[in-house]
Amino acid sequence: MIELFKFRIEMRIPFEDVDLFRLLHNAKYFSYFEKCRFEYLRNLGLIYGEESLPNVECAVVEHFCSYKKPARYDDVIEFLVRVSYIRRSSLQFQYILRRKGDEQVLTTGYTNLVWVNFETGKPKTIPPHIKDPVVEFEGDNLNKMPGNPVVK
Amino acid sequence: MIELFKFRIEMRIPFEDVDLFRLLHNAKYFSYFEKCRFEYLRNLGLIYGEESLPNVECAVVEHFCSYKKPARYDDVIEFLVRVSYIRRSSLQFQYILRRKGDEQVLTTGYTNLVWVNFETGKPKTIPPHIKDPVVEFEGDNLNKMPGNPVVK
Amino acid sequence: MIELFKFRIEMRIPFEDVDLFRLLHNAKYFSYFEKCRFEYLRNLGLIYGEESLPNVECAVVEHFCSYKKPARYDDVIEFLVRVSYIRRSSLQFQYILRRKGDEQVLTTGYTNLVWVNFETGKPKTIPPHIKDPVVEFEGDNLNKMPGNPVVK
Amino acid sequence: MIELFKFRIEMRIPFEDVDLFRLLHNAKYFSYFEKCRFEYLRNLGLIYGEESLPNVECAVVEHFCSYKKPARYDDVIEFLVRVSYIRRSSLQFQYILRRKGDEQVLTTGYTNLVWVNFETGKPKTIPPHIKDPVVEFEGDNLNKMPGNPVVK
Repeated sequence: MIELFKFRIEMRIPFEDVDLFRLLHNAKYFSYFEKCRFEYLRNLGLIYGEESLPNVECAVVEHFCSYKKPARYDDVIEFLVRVSYIRRSSLQFQYILRRKGDEQVLTTGYTNLVWVNFETGKPKTIPPHIKDPVVEFEGDNLNKMPGNPVVK
Repeated sequence: MIELFKFRIEMRIPFEDVDLFRLLHNAKYFSYFEKCRFEYLRNLGLIYGEESLPNVECAVVEHFCSYKKPARYDDVIEFLVRVSYIRRSSLQFQYILRRKGDEQVLTTGYTNLVWVNFETGKPKTIPPHIKDPVVEFEGDNLNKMPGNPVVK
Repeated sequence: MIELFKFRIEMRIPFEDVDLFRLLHNAKYFSYFEKCRFEYLRNLGLIYGEESLPNVECAVVEHFCSYKKPARYDDVIEFLVRVSYIRRSSLQFQYILRRKGDEQVLTTGYTNLVWVNFETGKPKTIPPHIKDPVVEFEGDNLNKMPGNPVVK
Repeated sequence: MIELFKFRIEMRIPFEDVDLFRLLHNAKYFSYFEKCRFEYLRNLGLIYGEESLPNVECAVVEHFCSYKKPARYDDVIEFLVRVSYIRRSSLQFQYILRRKGDEQVLTTGYTNLVWVNFETGKPKTIPPHIKDPVVEFEGDNLNKMPGNPVVK
């Protein structure tokens, strides 16, 4: 399944994100997922500053995270990121977190997003200038294996 | 389903937790879920200071959140909290978030926890001094409707 | 000096704000200071929801914190809060943090704020509907002992 | 004064750190200052993982920040970092934040640290394996211009 992921970023776990039990705090993963989404979209030229924020005027509607092994202070984590499906007004981001060095899979998860008219609260069609680059980038991998990424 | 929840806390959304789109940031919900768990356990006398932290030497293994309506700055949110099941070494917390005033259900979610020997990384039996008060508090509601709380 | 402080709030230190060294993390104090400012202004009726946020369209220009003793998980902290001066377009908030139970002074600090026209970036006069309630609340204590609160 | 700073890191302001007023939140600067300290010490080989954390078993005793111009979402900030003095058991870190592109100085600040015996709470001598690399790195710049960095 890992071969479906074409985009990667790395982050080093900072002191501030580690809790009293010496582990990366469980809520921080969702901040890191957001960073993954922003960097993925930046890589496609869709996010580049405050004036590009209307490109992400969408709502997170579901979040899932499966914690397999803990991350610790100063671990360097590789985040594998993909869009697993894109529909009229929704799409899904998937994540696999691996520790650099021993290549252990630490965490998997996904985010379901819906494009919304922020005035009315109703879903709206994802604009082509956002959808098209994603479809082109993911190519044949789109619509394969949605949900929580399965890694053995 | 709401009648299964016997424990409630309230929180007011602070300025710092609201993002540029004027909405409670999606990652903060998981911090609030943690506060729910700690307050639930405090209410049962299981958390009361640093010396009680070994009582929660357990690992979050799965997190799920369904965002239905956004929360905004200064909203007062009622958090309904329950343990939906408790097994040999695992248990599940469920949450329903309702806005005070209009009683709208904003968010639902759950956390799956496993008690772990932090030395070996292996699951361990939940100690009776933790399990028994939870079983007594939840009573007949235990083992009903696990997973993401369904509210119409 | 403590007798100059007429407004108080209490907070319990949550698990998430404590770092690997088992101490309240040094950056969190500034989040708590913000909560102090908002609660002080709420008490005067100046902050009550999203529509009241223009009342605090002001910029933090200086922040100071003196850490005397550490706070720990589950400590209940009493925050003493005052406005020490208010001028044409600036004011200063002061804070003293005391632990409930042993009444130890843990931390002192201040925030200097300037009211700013967010379009032009220039200072503007603090509106009377904000200034007057603060002047009335602080009374004779205003303009006494600005800077970092001195407590023996 | 800028020429006294020999160490630099860059950070891009993420969405999550920007507040409802579209500005980098005032408390986040202190998290960034911490990152500066850790990266400075990593550069000297003093921080490299969990086993190196005893090297920073020291207490923040004072924090100051002067906010001159706001930072915004996606700004790339250059952090200039130095140790301005180092004594028997204390040292001071200074910071200057400049925006990449227009080179505007946004913020200045400092952190005063004291090495402490965490058992007794008493100050202790900074170990030579920490002090010596700092003294060597800063060289003649040490003991010049302590306090808040002055930049015109």
